[in-house]
Amino acid sequence: MSVSSEFQAANSTYVACFGDKGSLALPPAKKLAIVTCMDARIDPAAHLGIQEGDAHIIRSAGGVAKEAIRSIIISQQLLGTREIAVFHHTDCGMLTFTTPQLQDKLLAEHPQHADIIKSIDFLPFPDLEQSVKDDVKFLKDHPLVIKETKITGWIYDVHTGTVCILTALYQHKHSL
Amino acid sequence: MSVSSEFQAANSTYVACFGDKGSLALPPAKKLAIVTCMDARIDPAAHLGIQEGDAHIIRSAGGVAKEAIRSIIISQQLLGTREIAVFHHTDCGMLTFTTPQLQDKLLAEHPQHADIIKSIDFLPFPDLEQSVKDDVKFLKDHPLVIKETKITGWIYDVHTGTVCILTALYQHKHSL
Repeated sequence: MSVSSEFQAANSTYVACFGDKGSLALPPAKKLAIVTCMDARIDPAAHLGIQEGDAHIIRSAGGVAKEAIRSIIISQQLLGTREIAVFHHTDCGMLTFTTPQLQDKLLAEHPQHADIIKSIDFLPFPDLEQSVKDDVKFLKDHPLVIKETKITGWIYDVHTGTVCILTALYQHKHSL
Repeated sequence: MSVSSEFQAANSTYVACFGDKGSLALPPAKKLAIVTCMDARIDPAAHLGIQEGDAHIIRSAGGVAKEAIRSIIISQQLLGTREIAVFHHTDCGMLTFTTPQLQDKLLAEHPQHADIIKSIDFLPFPDLEQSVKDDVKFLKDHPLVIKETKITGWIYDVHTGTVCILTALYQHKHSL
């Protein structure tokens, strides 16, 4: 069965149990934005108990705050969120390479696109805990993140399913 | 109960039922990357029947392909995915504003940060179906997306939970 057929079969089951989710409001009920990795082993709704309507979930390679900032500004300015939880995770692919290494791999395949390749920062990080602290600090210090935002930093363990809070809950602009 | 306490309580339940998920491989089993919106009403794993280990899930305001390209290159080059499914959805916040409008709102609050504000393209779109077609074409034409990638474009209806395929499955570099 193709992925498209699988999607449609699974979706029929979901729609049959959709209940009253069609009346959920656009703004997240918990006024919360979660930033986490795209990693296939991670289901943030499942491991955090998030229901449809609760929270914005922003995901990318690594769950890096720098790339999430566009979404976070929209989330705060237009949809009223006032809390951000940043999750990075053990065994993350972003711990395994550097931007120059991936650029070299791409350059070997596409030498004619050197300009595009060299323009991309792939945003890997060499240290898991430090990456969470750095991203929380980035958000805390960002001039367009609303001042009273609560920001927490977390690590998800892909081998146990456990979440661990790394940075205590605090208000934006206060020190870590 | 604070959000952090809620996370930890829900996570305890998840961990208790974690089973053998700790041995899942890093590369996605379905060799699939899904791009979709951060919208709180959307649970892509639930509405598509995606299990832990199956697929990369990339989410942002709108689920726009342009911002997802860094993650997609990492997904393809380092973790072997060869299919991309792009989902946008009805009643999306990205249909409700323009970049200059949001910039003006931010400028009124932070006139001292005009340079940062004016540097951000918030990537809204005025037409839902066209935005899916545009993003599929963007990925199809991108020189760093692997040539044989299967790419599909979809719309998710937040009022019914239904997914609808908008662009037929096709190989990268073939016309829509």
